[in-house]
Amino acid sequence: MRQTYAIIGLGRFGGALLETLIANGQDVLGIDISEEHVNEYRDIATQVVIADAQEDDVLRKLDIASFDHVVIAIGHNMQASILATINAKDLGAKNVIAKAENRTHLRVLTKIGADLVVQPEREMGERIGRKLLAPNMLNFIELSDDYSMAEVQIVNPTFTGKTISELNIHKKFGLNVIAVRHEGEVIVAPDSKYKIHHKDILSVVGPKDMVDDFDQMTNN
Amino acid sequence: MRQTYAIIGLGRFGGALLETLIANGQDVLGIDISEEHVNEYRDIATQVVIADAQEDDVLRKLDIASFDHVVIAIGHNMQASILATINAKDLGAKNVIAKAENRTHLRVLTKIGADLVVQPEREMGERIGRKLLAPNMLNFIELSDDYSMAEVQIVNPTFTGKTISELNIHKKFGLNVIAVRHEGEVIVAPDSKYKIHHKDILSVVGPKDMVDDFDQMTNN
Amino acid sequence: MRQTYAIIGLGRFGGALLETLIANGQDVLGIDISEEHVNEYRDIATQVVIADAQEDDVLRKLDIASFDHVVIAIGHNMQASILATINAKDLGAKNVIAKAENRTHLRVLTKIGADLVVQPEREMGERIGRKLLAPNMLNFIELSDDYSMAEVQIVNPTFTGKTISELNIHKKFGLNVIAVRHEGEVIVAPDSKYKIHHKDILSVVGPKDMVDDFDQMTNN
Amino acid sequence: MRQTYAIIGLGRFGGALLETLIANGQDVLGIDISEEHVNEYRDIATQVVIADAQEDDVLRKLDIASFDHVVIAIGHNMQASILATINAKDLGAKNVIAKAENRTHLRVLTKIGADLVVQPEREMGERIGRKLLAPNMLNFIELSDDYSMAEVQIVNPTFTGKTISELNIHKKFGLNVIAVRHEGEVIVAPDSKYKIHHKDILSVVGPKDMVDDFDQMTNN
Amino acid sequence: MRQTYAIIGLGRFGGALLETLIANGQDVLGIDISEEHVNEYRDIATQVVIADAQEDDVLRKLDIASFDHVVIAIGHNMQASILATINAKDLGAKNVIAKAENRTHLRVLTKIGADLVVQPEREMGERIGRKLLAPNMLNFIELSDDYSMAEVQIVNPTFTGKTISELNIHKKFGLNVIAVRHEGEVIVAPDSKYKIHHKDILSVVGPKDMVDDFDQMTNN
Amino acid sequence: MRQTYAIIGLGRFGGALLETLIANGQDVLGIDISEEHVNEYRDIATQVVIADAQEDDVLRKLDIASFDHVVIAIGHNMQASILATINAKDLGAKNVIAKAENRTHLRVLTKIGADLVVQPEREMGERIGRKLLAPNMLNFIELSDDYSMAEVQIVNPTFTGKTISELNIHKKFGLNVIAVRHEGEVIVAPDSKYKIHHKDILSVVGPKDMVDDFDQMTNN
Amino acid sequence: MRQTYAIIGLGRFGGALLETLIANGQDVLGIDISEEHVNEYRDIATQVVIADAQEDDVLRKLDIASFDHVVIAIGHNMQASILATINAKDLGAKNVIAKAENRTHLRVLTKIGADLVVQPEREMGERIGRKLLAPNMLNFIELSDDYSMAEVQIVNPTFTGKTISELNIHKKFGLNVIAVRHEGEVIVAPDSKYKIHHKDILSVVGPKDMVDDFDQMTNN
Amino acid sequence: MRQTYAIIGLGRFGGALLETLIANGQDVLGIDISEEHVNEYRDIATQVVIADAQEDDVLRKLDIASFDHVVIAIGHNMQASILATINAKDLGAKNVIAKAENRTHLRVLTKIGADLVVQPEREMGERIGRKLLAPNMLNFIELSDDYSMAEVQIVNPTFTGKTISELNIHKKFGLNVIAVRHEGEVIVAPDSKYKIHHKDILSVVGPKDMVDDFDQMTNN
Repeated sequence: MRQTYAIIGLGRFGGALLETLIANGQDVLGIDISEEHVNEYRDIATQVVIADAQEDDVLRKLDIASFDHVVIAIGHNMQASILATINAKDLGAKNVIAKAENRTHLRVLTKIGADLVVQPEREMGERIGRKLLAPNMLNFIELSDDYSMAEVQIVNPTFTGKTISELNIHKKFGLNVIAVRHEGEVIVAPDSKYKIHHKDILSVVGPKDMVDDFDQMTNN
Repeated sequence: MRQTYAIIGLGRFGGALLETLIANGQDVLGIDISEEHVNEYRDIATQVVIADAQEDDVLRKLDIASFDHVVIAIGHNMQASILATINAKDLGAKNVIAKAENRTHLRVLTKIGADLVVQPEREMGERIGRKLLAPNMLNFIELSDDYSMAEVQIVNPTFTGKTISELNIHKKFGLNVIAVRHEGEVIVAPDSKYKIHHKDILSVVGPKDMVDDFDQMTNN
Repeated sequence: MRQTYAIIGLGRFGGALLETLIANGQDVLGIDISEEHVNEYRDIATQVVIADAQEDDVLRKLDIASFDHVVIAIGHNMQASILATINAKDLGAKNVIAKAENRTHLRVLTKIGADLVVQPEREMGERIGRKLLAPNMLNFIELSDDYSMAEVQIVNPTFTGKTISELNIHKKFGLNVIAVRHEGEVIVAPDSKYKIHHKDILSVVGPKDMVDDFDQMTNN
Repeated sequence: MRQTYAIIGLGRFGGALLETLIANGQDVLGIDISEEHVNEYRDIATQVVIADAQEDDVLRKLDIASFDHVVIAIGHNMQASILATINAKDLGAKNVIAKAENRTHLRVLTKIGADLVVQPEREMGERIGRKLLAPNMLNFIELSDDYSMAEVQIVNPTFTGKTISELNIHKKFGLNVIAVRHEGEVIVAPDSKYKIHHKDILSVVGPKDMVDDFDQMTNN
Repeated sequence: MRQTYAIIGLGRFGGALLETLIANGQDVLGIDISEEHVNEYRDIATQVVIADAQEDDVLRKLDIASFDHVVIAIGHNMQASILATINAKDLGAKNVIAKAENRTHLRVLTKIGADLVVQPEREMGERIGRKLLAPNMLNFIELSDDYSMAEVQIVNPTFTGKTISELNIHKKFGLNVIAVRHEGEVIVAPDSKYKIHHKDILSVVGPKDMVDDFDQMTNN
Repeated sequence: MRQTYAIIGLGRFGGALLETLIANGQDVLGIDISEEHVNEYRDIATQVVIADAQEDDVLRKLDIASFDHVVIAIGHNMQASILATINAKDLGAKNVIAKAENRTHLRVLTKIGADLVVQPEREMGERIGRKLLAPNMLNFIELSDDYSMAEVQIVNPTFTGKTISELNIHKKFGLNVIAVRHEGEVIVAPDSKYKIHHKDILSVVGPKDMVDDFDQMTNN
Repeated sequence: MRQTYAIIGLGRFGGALLETLIANGQDVLGIDISEEHVNEYRDIATQVVIADAQEDDVLRKLDIASFDHVVIAIGHNMQASILATINAKDLGAKNVIAKAENRTHLRVLTKIGADLVVQPEREMGERIGRKLLAPNMLNFIELSDDYSMAEVQIVNPTFTGKTISELNIHKKFGLNVIAVRHEGEVIVAPDSKYKIHHKDILSVVGPKDMVDDFDQMTNN
Repeated sequence: MRQTYAIIGLGRFGGALLETLIANGQDVLGIDISEEHVNEYRDIATQVVIADAQEDDVLRKLDIASFDHVVIAIGHNMQASILATINAKDLGAKNVIAKAENRTHLRVLTKIGADLVVQPEREMGERIGRKLLAPNMLNFIELSDDYSMAEVQIVNPTFTGKTISELNIHKKFGLNVIAVRHEGEVIVAPDSKYKIHHKDILSVVGPKDMVDDFDQMTNN
C-alpha cells in the first residue's frame, strides 16, 4: 500500500528514514534548508525541495496537508522544529511525527499538536544501555511492565549439548522457547528434544525477571 | 553482576545511556569536556570528571583499561571521537563502543579497533521508517533474513470477536501466536479459543513476508 | 491592592514594565540571563535574579506558581521565550503574559498556554500609523467596530471663537463633546456655550467616520 | 487626504506602520538594507527599495525631501539610525519620526533634529504595566494630570442588574458615563435608567483617582 | 599654567595626545574600555580608569564637568563616540574635542555640541599630499587664502653661493625672508648679504602662488 | 609639474591624500582590496584597481616601478603593509611612503626600505596636544630645537589698542613680528606703528621659550 | 621513468612536493578544497581539481586507484586527512603517503592503512636542532645506529695547511675521507696528500662518535 | 660544549627542536603565548615562559641578547614572527634563526636581520618529492651542483649475488662505493670482492646523473 511522506530535515535521522521508506516503495518528498543535504538525496527521493520550513508559505505551497505523513526531522534548531510543526498542523497535516532534542522540546511539540514525538539519541542511549546489561540478549520486546520476549545467545558451556527439555527452561524460568536460530537458520516452535549448540540463539517469552535471570545464567 | 563503565561524552546519547546503567545498579564514570554537561550528571553518576579525552594523558590517568566497558559517546566532533577511541584501545581498554556520525566515520572507528560502533540517528531513522510502513506492528525482531517476531495490534473490525483458531492464523499466514496483550495484561501461549478484541496486541513469529501481510490485513 | 509579579527578561519592554509596576507600589521580581541587565534594575526591583529561564529548575526554585502574574519579556530568543512559557505554565503559573516576535511565535505561545500575548513593536507601529493619519487626534479608543472616542485638537481658525453649539458638532457630526482641555485645565461635560480657543482639545464620542471627518475638518 | 511616506527599516515596527498606512490608502515607499525584509513588503507597499540609508547619496537619490513624512524605523543599529536621521534632515525632510533604542539615543535623535522620537518597547512596557494594574480598565486616555477617560468592564456581581442611576456613579465617584458597550453594541450617552449587565463595558470620564477607585470596586 | 584633561580612548591618537600633555606638565586622566590600553598608560598618566564612556553614570562619577578639556578620542566605534560626546556635554563639560571617522560623523558630533572635531587620518592625508606636491617646502602655515609662510630648502645649484639680495627674492617673488637655517643653526631676520649654501632652509612669507613658484624654482 | 602616484589603501588617510593630489592636477592610481573603497574613488582618481597588494604579481603587473611615488596607506593590517612595502621596493619603486601603526611597525618598514614612514594618528595626537597647550597659538613651525615661528591670536585686553612698538615685543621677547592678520586681511612685515586690535593674529619668529611666554601673556 | 601522482592539499608542503615532481618530469594531479590554492598551481601541475577529498565520491570519480602514488598533504584539518586517507585506501590506492600533525594523528593514519606517514614540522625541528649542535657538519646520513657519513667544514686554523695524511684522520678518528669540496669543486676520493684549506668541506664516513668528535675539533 | 638557546613558539617545529636540543644536553628556554603549549614542555625544557614576543619589553626582560641562539619558531602569525625577529635583533641577539611561511616572509625576515631562515613545510615537500623520484635512494647529500653522495638499496635481482667488482660500478657509473649496510651491519670501505645480497644498501659517491642512473638500474 503506497503512501506519501514529506520529510523536513535530511540529516542523519531524516536521511535514514527517507532511504528506508524509498526502499519499501513509498513516495517521499525530501525538504531541507541546505542545498548540500538536498543534493545527497536528489537521486534517491521521489522529489526534493530546498526550502526553509519555518516560513508558513513554504509548507502551504508544498500542499503539506495532502501528505499521509509529515516528519519534522530538523536537527539542532529547536525553534525551526517548533515553527515547522505548528505550521504543518495549522495547514491540516494529518500525521505529524517530530524529532525532539530534549524533554522540554518534547512537551512543546506535543502541546502544539505533534502526533508522535521521537528522541533518537536518547532512545538509542537506553537501548545500548540495556544491551550492555544483558550482553547475550540480542533483542527484546517489552510486552508489558511484567512480560517480555527476548533473543538470548547461549555461550555458557553448561547449557550446550543438552535438549530444551533437559534444560527445563519452562519449569525453572517459566519461559516458553518460541524459536531457535542455529547458524543462521531459524526453527520456529522447536521440538523440546532439540539439542542446543554453543552460540545458538533462543527466542523466549515470559516474565521479565525470568528473562533477565535466564540471560545472566547463560552468560558465563 | 555489577560492572564498571566509562562514558566519554554526556550529550543526549551518553546521558541516556548513563541513566539506564545507573538505574540498573552499575558503576558509571561520566567524562565530558563541558562543565555544564558534567554538572547535569554529577548527582546521578558514580563519578564524573571534566576532561578532554583527546589527550592521551587524560585516559591514562583515569586508568581507562580498568573499566569493563568504555563508551565513546562524543557528539559532533569526529576528530575527538577518533582520537579518544585510538587512545582508549592503545591503553588496553577491553570493550570500546563508539558512536559514529556517518559511514566513513564508522569505517575509521572499526579500523582503529572499536569493538562496536553505533549510529543512533541513522538506526532510529530506519526504525521509525519501518514503524510508519507497518503502523500496527508495534515492535519486531529480525530473527534472520527470512524470519521475524512482531507485535501486531488488531484494528480491522473483521478480525475482532473471532478466536485465534477461527482466524486460522497459522494456516493462512504460517505464523505462531506466542502471546496476546489485552488491556495491559499479557497471556503467554494463549489458548486457540481465545477470542480477539479490538486493539488486542498479538505477538507472532514466522516468515517475514507473512508477518508483513498479516500486519497489512489487520490494518483496516 | 498589592500584587506580585515575576518579569523574565529585563530589556527595554520588561524594564519599562518593571518600572511602571514598582512606581505603582507593586512587588516585582526581575529575572534575566545577563548580569548587566539585572544590575540595571537591582536598586529598583523588589528582588532580582540572574538566571536562564529556559531551564525548568530555575523557575521551580523561584516558586513561579506563587506569583500573581508572570511576564515572559524575553527579547529576540524565540526558543527561550517558548521554553520559559511552557515551563511557567507547567509549574502552575496563574497569569502568563508573553511577548511575541511575530505571528507564528504568537500562535505557538497561545497553543502552549500563554494567557495573553503582546507584540510591542507591531502594536506601536499600528499606533504611530493611526497618529500620522489623524495628526490632530491626540488619543483615541475604539469602542467597537463603529464607535470611537477621541481627543481632537482645534487648529483650524474657522473653528475658534465659536461656542460648541454654534459649531453644531452634535448635529453635523453626530458627536458628543465629553470634555474640553484648555491650557492644561480639563472641563468635563462642558456647557454648550463654551467658546473654543485655538489649540483647545475636545474629547468627543460617536461614530468612527464622523470622528475622522471632524478631525480632518479641524486640520486646516 | 492622501499623503506620501518613506519608511526606512521594515522590521516589525516599520512593517506594521507600513501596513496600517497602506490599509488607509496612503502612498508608502519602503526602504531596507535587507532584501528579505524588502521582499516581504514588495506586493504591499506603493514602492520598495533595497538600500543602505546611512549613505547620504541614497536618500538624495530617493528625493527624501519630497515626502510628507519620513520614518526612521531602523532596528538595532543605533549608528545607522543616527546617520539616516541627520542625512534626512540635512536633505530637507519635513517631518522626521525616528525610533529610539534608549534614552541617550532619544537625546541624540532630538538634538540632530528628529521631529518626533518614539520608543515602542518602552511605551508598550508602560502600557502593559498600567493594564495589569487596572485589569478591568480596557483602555484609557490621560486628559491631564488630574483627569482621565477610561473603559471599565463590570465583573463585580454587586454592580450587575442595577441601573446607572442606582449605582450613583456620578455622585459616588464624580464620573460621567459617556457610553456603554453591551455585547459589542455601543450606546452613546446612555440613559440613566440603563440596567448594567455582567461584562458590560462603561466609558467614563472624571478625576483620575476616582476612575482608579471605580475600576478597583468593579474588580471583585 | 597647569590645566586638567580627560582623554576618553587611549588608542594611537589619544595616547600620543596624553603623552604630549603629560610631557608639558599637565594633569591628565586617561579612560579606556580596554584594560590593555589603560595599562600602557598607567605609569605615564596622572590617573587612569577602565570604563565604558557610553554609560552616562561613568562620566558622572568621574565628574567630567570639572575638567578644563575633555577629548573623545574613541577609535572606530562611531556610536560610542556619539554617546560619550552627548553625555559629556549634557553633564556640563566645558570644552569637548571629538575625533570623527568621516564627514557625517563630524556633522553629528557638531550638532550634538562638540566644541572642536578633528579627523586625524584625513588631515594627515592632506598634509602628506601637500608635502609630496612641494618636496622642498618643509613646513608651511596658511595665513589667509592668499598669504602663506613656508620653509623652503635650497637644492637647486643655481641658487647656491649667491646672497639673498643677489637672488632678488623680494622683487622677483614678493617674498620676505624671515629666517635662514644653516646646518642646524637659525639666523632670524638674516642680513641681505647672507650667502646661501646648498641645503640651507629659508623661511619666507608672502603671497601663496609666489611661495609655490619659489619652491618649484629651487627644486631642480 | 605633473607626477604619477600609486596609492595602495583607500581608507581615510589614503583617500584624503588621493583627493589632495588630484585637486592639484596629479596623475593618481588608487588600489584597494575592497570594492567599496575603490568605488568611492572611481570617478575621482585617474585610475582605480581592486587588488591585494600583498601578492607580488599584483604590483608587478601594475608596473609599480614606473610611478614617481608609491604610498602604502594600508589601514590596520600590519602584515599586508609590510609585504606590500617589500614587494614595491623589490620591484624597484623609487619613493615609497608607508603608514605605520606603531613604533615597531615603523622600524620594520624602515629596515625593509621605506623612504618615508608616517604615523597619522600619533602625529595628529601630538599636534592637538600642542594646540591645547597653547590655545592662542594657531599654527607653528619648529625651525630648530631653539627657534620657532608661530601665529598667536591676541585676546588679552591689555595688548589691544597698542602699537607693535609700544608693546615692545622685540625687546621684551626677542621676537620679530613678520605679519599681522586683521579680519582676514594679511599685512606682511607690518609697520611698528600698526595698532593691534582684539583677535588680531600676529605671526612671530624667535626663540621657542619666548614664543611660548608671549602666547601665555596674550592668553589673559 | 614517468609515474603518476595525485597530491591532495596544495599548501606549502603539498605545493613544494608538486613543484619538485613536475620539475622532474612527472605527471601530477593537484587537488585542493580552496580555489585560491588550486589557481596557484594551475599552470604548473599536469592537471588541477577543486574538490573536497573527504567525500568518497570525489576520489572515486578521480579514479584515485589508477595513480602510482597518492599524497594526502592536507594541512590542519585532521578529520579531513583521516577521511581522505581511508577513502583512498578503500578505493584501492597503491601507495598512500600522508602528512600527520602529531603522534596520535600518525597512529590513526598508520592504523587505517597509510603506507608512509610524514611529520614535516617535527622532522625539520629535529634537523635544525642537529645542525645547531654541529654547526660545521653541513649534512649527514645515519648509516646505522653506530655509523654515519657527514660533510664537515674546516674552520679551525690548526687544521688548515696540512695534508689529509698529516692530520691523521683515519688513525685518530677512524674516519675515511670520501670527498673534499674546495671552492665549489668536488674531488672524489682525494689523495692523502691533498692539503686542506680554510673552509674546505670534507665528506667523511665512520663511527658516529668519531664523526661528532671530528666536528667538534674542527669547530674552534 | 653546552650552549644556551631561546625558542619562541613551541608548536610542532619549535617543540621538536627543543626536544632535540635538550636530549643533547643543552640549556633551552621555551617561550609561547599559549599556556597550553608552554605546559607541554614545562617538565622538559630548562625553563619556560608564557609571553607575547611581539612586545619588545618581553624580550628585553628575558635578556634575549645573552643567549647563544634565538629561534623564532612562531607558527602562522606572520606579523608576530616579523616583530619578534626585529625586536630580538635590535636587542642584540647574536644568532637569530627564524621560520618563514613563504618566500615574501623569508625576504622580510632576511632584510630585518635574521641570520638563518627556514621553511619546514616547503623543505620537507621537496625532500619527499626527491624520495618518491628515487625510491631506492634512501638518503643523499648534494656535494655540489654536479656531485652527490647517496644510499641506494639493491632490489633488482640481476645485481644480487655479484661482487662489487663484477658489477663494475666504478667503470660503468663512475661511482665509488664508500660503505655497504647488510642486515643492519655497516662495512666501511668494503672490499671489491664483497658479494651483494638482496636489500643490501650501498653508499656511493660520484657524479649526480650517474647516481640517478644507478638508482634507476637497481630499481627493477
